[in-house]
Amino acid sequence: MNTIPYSARSKEELQAEKAAVQAKYDELKQRGLKLDMSRGKPGKAQLDMVMDIFDVLKTPEDYMDGGIDVRNYGQLSGIPSAKALFADILGCKTEETFIGGNASLNLMYDVIAKAHTHGLLHSDSPWSQQKGIKFLCPAPGYDRHFKVTESFGVEMITIPMTSEGPDMDKVEEAIKDPLVKGMWCVPKYSNPDGIIYSDAVISRIAHMKPAAKDFLLMWDNAYCVHEFFGDYVPFPDIIGLCREAGNPDMVFEFASTSKITLPGAGVSVMAASEANIAYMSKLMGVQVISYDKVNQLRHARYLKDKAHTLELMKKHAAILGPKFKAVLDALETEIAPLGIANWQHPKGGYFVSLNALPGTAKRTLALCKEAGVVMTGAGATFPYGKDPEDSNIRIAPSLPPVEELEAAVEVFCICLRLAALEKLLAC
Amino acid sequence: MNTIPYSARSKEELQAEKAAVQAKYDELKQRGLKLDMSRGKPGKAQLDMVMDIFDVLKTPEDYMDGGIDVRNYGQLSGIPSAKALFADILGCKTEETFIGGNASLNLMYDVIAKAHTHGLLHSDSPWSQQKGIKFLCPAPGYDRHFKVTESFGVEMITIPMTSEGPDMDKVEEAIKDPLVKGMWCVPKYSNPDGIIYSDAVISRIAHMKPAAKDFLLMWDNAYCVHEFFGDYVPFPDIIGLCREAGNPDMVFEFASTSKITLPGAGVSVMAASEANIAYMSKLMGVQVISYDKVNQLRHARYLKDKAHTLELMKKHAAILGPKFKAVLDALETEIAPLGIANWQHPKGGYFVSLNALPGTAKRTLALCKEAGVVMTGAGATFPYGKDPEDSNIRIAPSLPPVEELEAAVEVFCICLRLAALEKLLAC
Repeated sequence: MNTIPYSARSKEELQAEKAAVQAKYDELKQRGLKLDMSRGKPGKAQLDMVMDIFDVLKTPEDYMDGGIDVRNYGQLSGIPSAKALFADILGCKTEETFIGGNASLNLMYDVIAKAHTHGLLHSDSPWSQQKGIKFLCPAPGYDRHFKVTESFGVEMITIPMTSEGPDMDKVEEAIKDPLVKGMWCVPKYSNPDGIIYSDAVISRIAHMKPAAKDFLLMWDNAYCVHEFFGDYVPFPDIIGLCREAGNPDMVFEFASTSKITLPGAGVSVMAASEANIAYMSKLMGVQVISYDKVNQLRHARYLKDKAHTLELMKKHAAILGPKFKAVLDALETEIAPLGIANWQHPKGGYFVSLNALPGTAKRTLALCKEAGVVMTGAGATFPYGKDPEDSNIRIAPSLPPVEELEAAVEVFCICLRLAALEKLLAC
Repeated sequence: MNTIPYSARSKEELQAEKAAVQAKYDELKQRGLKLDMSRGKPGKAQLDMVMDIFDVLKTPEDYMDGGIDVRNYGQLSGIPSAKALFADILGCKTEETFIGGNASLNLMYDVIAKAHTHGLLHSDSPWSQQKGIKFLCPAPGYDRHFKVTESFGVEMITIPMTSEGPDMDKVEEAIKDPLVKGMWCVPKYSNPDGIIYSDAVISRIAHMKPAAKDFLLMWDNAYCVHEFFGDYVPFPDIIGLCREAGNPDMVFEFASTSKITLPGAGVSVMAASEANIAYMSKLMGVQVISYDKVNQLRHARYLKDKAHTLELMKKHAAILGPKFKAVLDALETEIAPLGIANWQHPKGGYFVSLNALPGTAKRTLALCKEAGVVMTGAGATFPYGKDPEDSNIRIAPSLPPVEELEAAVEVFCICLRLAALEKLLAC
């Protein structure tokens, strides 16, 4: 392979390269591939690995948690053993946990929805009765977060991501506006950048002094124990940090077992100050008598505690690591020398975030689609689905087996090159 | 026992009776009972009976439903086999079903919440932007329904219940008001009366011509297959009836397996026109990727179809029937001759609805509580928790074993008599 950067090549050389890449692309298209790198879905090997979770509850007696028969109604905020498990994992108090159903996204939506329909603990009125509500969206970020705020007509303000987390100078300036009501954060292995927020950034976040007294820090700790390369990286208890910083009720933290046991059949948790949990429990009690406590108990018995959960995560890493390595190796070999993209090198989470030549992300993904490789839509990682640079691409290598993944990445690299060449030659 | 009605007794006779009943009450109080007839919770024998539901899925291959691996993300509106099961039970089309999580109450709340935050399919604007929204509440009714509408600040209008369902003359008059946006219904074994809406009433409901074009008929078919005496009673498909009556998008129907398999660990369903399901799916897709499909498949494999589900309901009836009989027999023997209460004689559902002498319901339940028997709070069956007559009492006999139930009913009958005597002697 010719490893001279495209920027150092002549127009003729680029034209020759384009012809060669186009030919390769046409050949790949002929293969009739059907490959999916669009979402952070665990692969089948990961699902098969945890099947013994369904063996932990057998006799009717097994369904008792302390004095509670988990098969009947009750226990809105979760069963004791599930609270203990999540408090251990998140480093907060059991009283600060609210155990939900199978989807932490649903708990996040509930908090935002309640803010709009009923107001939060420190709201003067429901947000639906206030005009011009805004939310800070560090980007690139998680498309489903942005969809929630967008769905309620909230104006989203993009905050650039740095290598340590959100640009806090911009955040601290923005929160002077009392209409700025909150911020989305994925503090560990952020979606999609895979960045871990630095201690300094987290401290500045905990110490924020927003003009809005009902400012809502949405702390989605989706990948809190999700290393795929190397050892577990500890993270601070944001509930405690906010309390110590004089902002006890500012933060709601979320996590789930979707990528620990089974996506869509796991257990979710919301953690917040006891005052927030009491306030939200009152509102949530109108919509549900209790969540699936059988599944809560199954998880508590299976995962046991944080240490045991981390052992399981090592097994997931053994499956996921090679997939991420396949993507990163291919990018290093096929793309790095050409100077047409840069990307993060995450050690956990579910994504590789790549920035292509500005103006080529959409085209790259359209070419991928045509060749049978589905990726997350271009722009999805930005508020309103609009990447101002048309550059960011989220790669999700977790679902396909390694051999399929290698085929998919091969297609992706060719598409990236073809889109770059089209762009360079059009200038 | 003296079986002369209290109304036919002299003051002296009543005073003597009161002294005797008071003595009996004091004796019962000494027993230090702790009995619960407060909520429609299945008893332990019912829970133990369905434990084999956890044996139906074993190998990784078992988790495939058609081509779908139910252990991974996806299938927002439910898996095919769960849709087929509920369509069979409800008599609607599979395309008209949306399978949810463990709680149909949550789906009901979602529909009402979406009406407020986003509007329904035929709304001009979200309800939160309209002032003075009202909802029709046939009463006595289900307290949790009323709590949902109350939580959103909706004005609740009480509609009297007849022996055939809601008083339709009053309903048809009320819906001329365009601010009347909907109605709660429990069409089969209504909570708490245990009434089955007649065909005539159901037809009038389907043919309503509400002034509000986004009128929302909340059809909570919670007890659709829940006979405890006698054979299964068929019910009509309300989705089809509304369609034929020219109101295709007026109704949302709800059901769950909470009282078929496990309360709190079952599967819920929402059924509505395909247009409504498409509209709601778009809104629900913002809050959840998919519900617990493992539990959906477990239920589909375990319950199989309507016929097989009805066989299981016969086994529930064998446990529940004797409990209802114990309550109804005691009332017949101890209370009927005295003329101080009347009650329904349901053949299904989870409650016995009793009307005590006006002005004695609260006092009766306070006496029960003092003697260690917890009942649903007086007034709970009316909007805002206020029974204008202070008369209706909801008895929930399902949770305690028969022997405990007999003890609880004994206390209840004595309290009913004591409260009546206090009232009669105070006049």
